[in-house]
Amino acid sequence: MEFKEKYNQWLNIVNAALENMLEEKDNPQKNIYRAMKYSLEAGGKRLRPILTLAVCDSFGQDYKIAMPYACAIEMIHTYSLIHDDLPAMDNDDYRRGKLTNHKVFGEAMAILAGNALLNYAFEIMHQDMLKNKEFLERKIKAACIISNASGVSGMIGGQVIDIESQNKEMTLELVEYMHSKKTGALIKAPVLAAAVLCDARTDEMKYLEQYAEKIGLAFQIKDDILDFEGDFKVMGKLSGNDAANNKQTFVTLYGLDKAREILYKTASEALKYISKLNFESHFLEELVDYIVTRDK
Amino acid sequence: MEFKEKYNQWLNIVNAALENMLEEKDNPQKNIYRAMKYSLEAGGKRLRPILTLAVCDSFGQDYKIAMPYACAIEMIHTYSLIHDDLPAMDNDDYRRGKLTNHKVFGEAMAILAGNALLNYAFEIMHQDMLKNKEFLERKIKAACIISNASGVSGMIGGQVIDIESQNKEMTLELVEYMHSKKTGALIKAPVLAAAVLCDARTDEMKYLEQYAEKIGLAFQIKDDILDFEGDFKVMGKLSGNDAANNKQTFVTLYGLDKAREILYKTASEALKYISKLNFESHFLEELVDYIVTRDK
Repeated sequence: MEFKEKYNQWLNIVNAALENMLEEKDNPQKNIYRAMKYSLEAGGKRLRPILTLAVCDSFGQDYKIAMPYACAIEMIHTYSLIHDDLPAMDNDDYRRGKLTNHKVFGEAMAILAGNALLNYAFEIMHQDMLKNKEFLERKIKAACIISNASGVSGMIGGQVIDIESQNKEMTLELVEYMHSKKTGALIKAPVLAAAVLCDARTDEMKYLEQYAEKIGLAFQIKDDILDFEGDFKVMGKLSGNDAANNKQTFVTLYGLDKAREILYKTASEALKYISKLNFESHFLEELVDYIVTRDK
Repeated sequence: MEFKEKYNQWLNIVNAALENMLEEKDNPQKNIYRAMKYSLEAGGKRLRPILTLAVCDSFGQDYKIAMPYACAIEMIHTYSLIHDDLPAMDNDDYRRGKLTNHKVFGEAMAILAGNALLNYAFEIMHQDMLKNKEFLERKIKAACIISNASGVSGMIGGQVIDIESQNKEMTLELVEYMHSKKTGALIKAPVLAAAVLCDARTDEMKYLEQYAEKIGLAFQIKDDILDFEGDFKVMGKLSGNDAANNKQTFVTLYGLDKAREILYKTASEALKYISKLNFESHFLEELVDYIVTRDK
């Protein structure tokens, strides 16, 4: 099967699972489900959950065991976007070509919808542990990896640096540290969560971690390039927004040519690490190419 | 030991544990620890974690097993206060006599500090499961109870109704439903989490749930009375704030006298349920009196 076909197959599986997990209930607080669903079903790439399922598949493990963890990560990712777009944060009106959550539901509801998605991610994982007791210790390890990656040592830590650095000079080192937290942590988590669910050996964990770090970095550099070059139709948000917010990016730091050079070097390193693994890694290799060549 | 002495003993134990769990790290995102600590260590009553420890104690179980879950609930409670105070929500400048989180650290950091506390609550529980494998299934049940109580079916659900009902007429039924979610869910959770950690029988769970529901309701009615009567010095926030925000409370709905009557009736029901339990419940009985007579 071709990569694109396979990616879309995973995408449909993830979308169906997410839709199934977030059932609207007819209760007095029902509007929050609408706000949660609005952003969760806004047509994301589903890179993070697909990473989880693909790593499981590479280990020859049924991907279904990882589904609650894969979906939890996507919910955490979505909550972070809703909060990042808030007036007090990046103040963005558009995301993926649609109005941002707070522009549709108001600021208070957007804050609550974000909180609710973060909370729901954990509810889903806990419910899975309660219902399906197989591999319980592996599941707890996966939950540890995910909650750590989304917290102060991970994604939130990166957001803090991002907020505090606006309109300030940043060292290259700090920019890289920020991205490794803000974007990197939640690209590494789906890979490592899948690995522990499949009971990966220490050396396998190490190579997968290095692979995930490189694709996380490549993803961010490509994002910065797209933001710099992109136009509204392709990116679904106003282009050059980072520059407008006085944010330091790989493009503002290195220039476009050098950023591209680093992107390709990073991609080739990702491929090197994944090749060290003794398993069916075709999809994970092609995924590197997808990250480098994507146009949104 | 007298109730007050015992309460203060638990309070000191909880405060020490919270301080110990939230260690400031010297990393580029270190300011978030300051913002988290500011609100977490702002001198709350610690009612929720103390409930957890006291229920464990009543079952004759070492309270230490419940400490991560007790502290997690207090972190969730604190995050909800930080977010409730935001300009987009209740827009409060003071809480417990101190400036609110966003007044000190700015809105963006307050949003992130809230998120970080919610996330950290789950990190703590997961870490405990990973390190201390005794009673693993009970711990998972406790985590399920807590994440459910803090989510869309619980506290966040109540916040949604609260936000959507401002400046609107509310039925009595809806006000009670809102409080059972917004405040009640996170007072019930510490009691039930402790009960499952102690492997309580079904009938014990039922009586504890009814006890917890009644003290949750009593707590809210008393809060409304204090808000109506209170002055800044005692409550640590501007009094009559609910009325200023056009919020329906038990006092605005029933009047002060009737609200007090319901408060006492509710308290006596709480005492009735706790007396059905065949364990050392002296502290939990006195706690009802504390909730009814407290002045802040």
